[in-house]
Amino acid sequence: MSEKTNLLETFPNQYPNRDYRIVHEAPEFTSVCPKTGQPDFATMTLEYIPNELCIELKSLKIYYTSFRNDGIYYESVTNKILEDLIEVVKPRFMRITAEFNVRGGISSVIEAEYESPEFQAKLWKAE
Amino acid sequence: MSEKTNLLETFPNQYPNRDYRIVHEAPEFTSVCPKTGQPDFATMTLEYIPNELCIELKSLKIYYTSFRNDGIYYESVTNKILEDLIEVVKPRFMRITAEFNVRGGISSVIEAEYESPEFQAKLWKAE
Amino acid sequence: MSEKTNLLETFPNQYPNRDYRIVHEAPEFTSVCPKTGQPDFATMTLEYIPNELCIELKSLKIYYTSFRNDGIYYESVTNKILEDLIEVVKPRFMRITAEFNVRGGISSVIEAEYESPEFQAKLWKAE
Amino acid sequence: MSEKTNLLETFPNQYPNRDYRIVHEAPEFTSVCPKTGQPDFATMTLEYIPNELCIELKSLKIYYTSFRNDGIYYESVTNKILEDLIEVVKPRFMRITAEFNVRGGISSVIEAEYESPEFQAKLWKAE
Amino acid sequence: MSEKTNLLETFPNQYPNRDYRIVHEAPEFTSVCPKTGQPDFATMTLEYIPNELCIELKSLKIYYTSFRNDGIYYESVTNKILEDLIEVVKPRFMRITAEFNVRGGISSVIEAEYESPEFQAKLWKAE
Amino acid sequence: MSEKTNLLETFPNQYPNRDYRIVHEAPEFTSVCPKTGQPDFATMTLEYIPNELCIELKSLKIYYTSFRNDGIYYESVTNKILEDLIEVVKPRFMRITAEFNVRGGISSVIEAEYESPEFQAKLWKAE
Amino acid sequence: MSEKTNLLETFPNQYPNRDYRIVHEAPEFTSVCPKTGQPDFATMTLEYIPNELCIELKSLKIYYTSFRNDGIYYESVTNKILEDLIEVVKPRFMRITAEFNVRGGISSVIEAEYESPEFQAKLWKAE
Amino acid sequence: MSEKTNLLETFPNQYPNRDYRIVHEAPEFTSVCPKTGQPDFATMTLEYIPNELCIELKSLKIYYTSFRNDGIYYESVTNKILEDLIEVVKPRFMRITAEFNVRGGISSVIEAEYESPEFQAKLWKAE
Amino acid sequence: MSEKTNLLETFPNQYPNRDYRIVHEAPEFTSVCPKTGQPDFATMTLEYIPNELCIELKSLKIYYTSFRNDGIYYESVTNKILEDLIEVVKPRFMRITAEFNVRGGISSVIEAEYESPEFQAKLWKAE
Amino acid sequence: MSEKTNLLETFPNQYPNRDYRIVHEAPEFTSVCPKTGQPDFATMTLEYIPNELCIELKSLKIYYTSFRNDGIYYESVTNKILEDLIEVVKPRFMRITAEFNVRGGISSVIEAEYESPEFQAKLWKAE
Repeated sequence: MSEKTNLLETFPNQYPNRDYRIVHEAPEFTSVCPKTGQPDFATMTLEYIPNELCIELKSLKIYYTSFRNDGIYYESVTNKILEDLIEVVKPRFMRITAEFNVRGGISSVIEAEYESPEFQAKLWKAE
Repeated sequence: MSEKTNLLETFPNQYPNRDYRIVHEAPEFTSVCPKTGQPDFATMTLEYIPNELCIELKSLKIYYTSFRNDGIYYESVTNKILEDLIEVVKPRFMRITAEFNVRGGISSVIEAEYESPEFQAKLWKAE
Repeated sequence: MSEKTNLLETFPNQYPNRDYRIVHEAPEFTSVCPKTGQPDFATMTLEYIPNELCIELKSLKIYYTSFRNDGIYYESVTNKILEDLIEVVKPRFMRITAEFNVRGGISSVIEAEYESPEFQAKLWKAE
Repeated sequence: MSEKTNLLETFPNQYPNRDYRIVHEAPEFTSVCPKTGQPDFATMTLEYIPNELCIELKSLKIYYTSFRNDGIYYESVTNKILEDLIEVVKPRFMRITAEFNVRGGISSVIEAEYESPEFQAKLWKAE
Repeated sequence: MSEKTNLLETFPNQYPNRDYRIVHEAPEFTSVCPKTGQPDFATMTLEYIPNELCIELKSLKIYYTSFRNDGIYYESVTNKILEDLIEVVKPRFMRITAEFNVRGGISSVIEAEYESPEFQAKLWKAE
Repeated sequence: MSEKTNLLETFPNQYPNRDYRIVHEAPEFTSVCPKTGQPDFATMTLEYIPNELCIELKSLKIYYTSFRNDGIYYESVTNKILEDLIEVVKPRFMRITAEFNVRGGISSVIEAEYESPEFQAKLWKAE
Repeated sequence: MSEKTNLLETFPNQYPNRDYRIVHEAPEFTSVCPKTGQPDFATMTLEYIPNELCIELKSLKIYYTSFRNDGIYYESVTNKILEDLIEVVKPRFMRITAEFNVRGGISSVIEAEYESPEFQAKLWKAE
Repeated sequence: MSEKTNLLETFPNQYPNRDYRIVHEAPEFTSVCPKTGQPDFATMTLEYIPNELCIELKSLKIYYTSFRNDGIYYESVTNKILEDLIEVVKPRFMRITAEFNVRGGISSVIEAEYESPEFQAKLWKAE
Repeated sequence: MSEKTNLLETFPNQYPNRDYRIVHEAPEFTSVCPKTGQPDFATMTLEYIPNELCIELKSLKIYYTSFRNDGIYYESVTNKILEDLIEVVKPRFMRITAEFNVRGGISSVIEAEYESPEFQAKLWKAE
Repeated sequence: MSEKTNLLETFPNQYPNRDYRIVHEAPEFTSVCPKTGQPDFATMTLEYIPNELCIELKSLKIYYTSFRNDGIYYESVTNKILEDLIEVVKPRFMRITAEFNVRGGISSVIEAEYESPEFQAKLWKAE
């Protein structure tokens, strides 16, 4: 298990009977490029439908800040954050969108998402 | 029953045979964080399809203002407002979108919605 | 029949074999609040697919201007305009979107639409 | 056949096996109102999926410019341009969106589109 | 095989079990018009779902820069870039959107996309 | 004396020893064109440095609304409002900026200002 | 005297004792490039302080429209409009700003202004 | 002395030999209208040149929050904040700009500023 | 003398008695970084008051394009363009503003200007 | 002498006879709040008129990055950067503008500038 997940705290979802959407947009995410050692900057947007747990906002900030001096690629950090948050929050649905600043004249977005098996089954039934 | 619902007033929908959409956007919502005691600020957007009743606009403002000094979390206040309005307006469809200002470098959106059983049945039939 | 419909003029649709979309956006709509006597302001957007008739633009302006000193609620004026225009233009599809300026810190949108029975049948068949 | 179509030139589509989208946005379209004799101004957007032919860009400009002193209504000019371009380019799909400047406090959009019978059949099969 | 593809480098996708989206937006693309010899300018947006390989960002920049003094048409350069990238990256899905600056008062967008046979089959099954 | 000035109410300036700036921007001003009988629309911005009196905001709104059905030209209404407000508020400095919506493809701004003799003398001395 | 000046009409300035500013912004100006024969497009902004006369808005529109099929360079048309308007309106101050659309990847602005001798003398005295 | 000034904390200016500018923009200011009892909302911008003291940011927030349930007019609250801050920070220059949300279709700005006698003398000398 | 100046063409200023302003904004300037060999991109804005000569627009474009494959630093290219244009156009006043795209997370602007001795003398006299 | 100044590199100004302006805007500045240990984020804008030396862009980036894990207050970091750059670049004029992201609902700007004695003397003489 990723050590960083210890930083993440949750609280019980008070409205588990309803599928509702929570979005946290963090424009101050920064990590380090493993190749050049230079800092990368991104807006990290987390969107999810909670099941039993919601993510505590301050702990999310501390979790994001823990990447500040880590050397990690765009694709890896986006997928890792998704996996850490799935592990801790066990959501019905979750999507991470990481919008990285211009490097070499090119800006990049990485977007990964997850649906729990139960949520997928429910969507099948509804169609 | 929530005492706050007494603040909400309605008037009869003059066009009940048509499904039409009403949106009220209120950028001046404010409540208090129960943890820190500091004020929170949000744009609260209500969207609904009326059945027999429409919400009276001034009473909606007074209802929103009643949260001004209440300590309540993002997720709770959004769902509570949805439930209060469902109880009073009994709409065919209703959605609350609460866009909260930046706290700790992170801005948040909570969005919850409701469809009446009759409205869902009608959608089934139309497909 | 609403007397205001006499203000609306039409001309023959030269391309009745094609379903095409016409939009007229009028940001200078104003009427009067029946409760307070104070003026209301809205951007009134008309979107439709013509059948045999198109609405003449200058007559639409005169029709809108006729509400200038009428006391009428948001929901009523939007639905009334839709009904008047359906009666005169007999469109395949029509939608009115009324975006009202801020009152008491809240801005409002009312949106109502119509599909002719023939247009609905055609959509059924196409699916 | 419309004489204006002589102004339009094409070149062979080098990638006919792929359905791809081409958009040309022309914010400098102008014609004359047949009623008032005053000039009208529009942004004319052409979107299409080529079959065997692509439209040559400079000839499109010359074609648009040929309307400069013609008296023609919004609905007519939009549909006429669509028909001229279908005749010359024989596309799989084509859409014209004409956004006209404010007249009498009202701005207007006319949007018409076309699908070739073969393209429609392919869409049916895919569903 | 296009010689330019030698410029493109890849690295293994660490998350092949998940369909996730990568976007690289490059607002500094420039080539030369084969007709006039004058430079063209575009924002080139690459969007893809990786299979086994991801495109290395710096090599993508060098690849784009290699077009700097090439005479090539809008439609050709967009489709060629798509084909080169498919050949090297072998993605599940890929889309190129090229937004060219105003020439003769007209701006243009060319957009082409690709789905691998396996990805299409998966989409069929899911429906 | 203009009858409309009776609509304007004032309250004592609590900080007469300081030159400070007050701005009221009213985007919902409307009057009628004396030539065509059609309504005109403007954003009316009042900026002033109070002397002994401040303008009461609600009375300003009622004053503006009194022009709703008056036939009056752009230049006249702007200068008249300035003169009415000077008469009632007796400010040190005052400026009216009226931004009128597009008519015949042309939007217009009329801007007039006033400095009291005492204020001018003070500026002289300061230079 | 330029024949076009016959198109321009004026009305008496009702407030000649006050130096106030009038701005008319016309985003639909078009003329023809004398070199290429292709149309040019500009936003033509007229700003002036009236003396005895104000320019009548509709005649200004007709005057601008008279350039529609004239072949004339950017610098010439801007200075000519300024001179025509000075001749007819005899203003205290006048400025023409012509913002031309992109040609060959370059957009252009030409700005010329005039102060009457009396206005200059007054400014001298005030300093 | 105003009791609220007890909420304001300062720290020593480390660079008193240089005139430099500090701006704090607070878009979440809210107080209550003494007339209607309804909440007012403003963006409160503080700009100053420190002398010996700088304002501590968190205490400024707490100070602003103390107005949350106070009934106070636009003009009064702006001038009072300026006076409280002058008293505590003793700046060389200070300006408060309060931008209030729309009420009755009108938005308002109140702007007041202060220069210390020493700062004014220095400006005289420099001219 | 710089060889590039041969590319620049002029035409006689038809209004030499008036000081008027000409601006040409070119968002498609590109050269090459002499250090990295990678292309640089800038918006190059030329602003001048002509004396006897105006710069011909198409030759300006060709002149800018001649830098396309030159290795030259930000500061040098901006000053060189100013000097070349002064030499050819002999203006009363001229300013070059070069806004370079982000490199290493930093965007840059270089701005240099020139006044002819006669123009400076005239300004002295006017003060 | 500050150790960080060793990171800054310069190159000779090739145009020392002309006063021209250089601006470098860096939206990715980050340091750490000494009180809370949480990261701060700013856009750091450097504007200067070079004398004998220009700042090398890449070294400026490395210099800014060196603050990444330093605990330092808004006012201190802005003034320190100004002093370091004056020491190394010895400019005629220099200004640092640091725009910090929202903390506790308040965003902040710190702006400090410097003029060399020679530059001030020249300005005196010119007036």
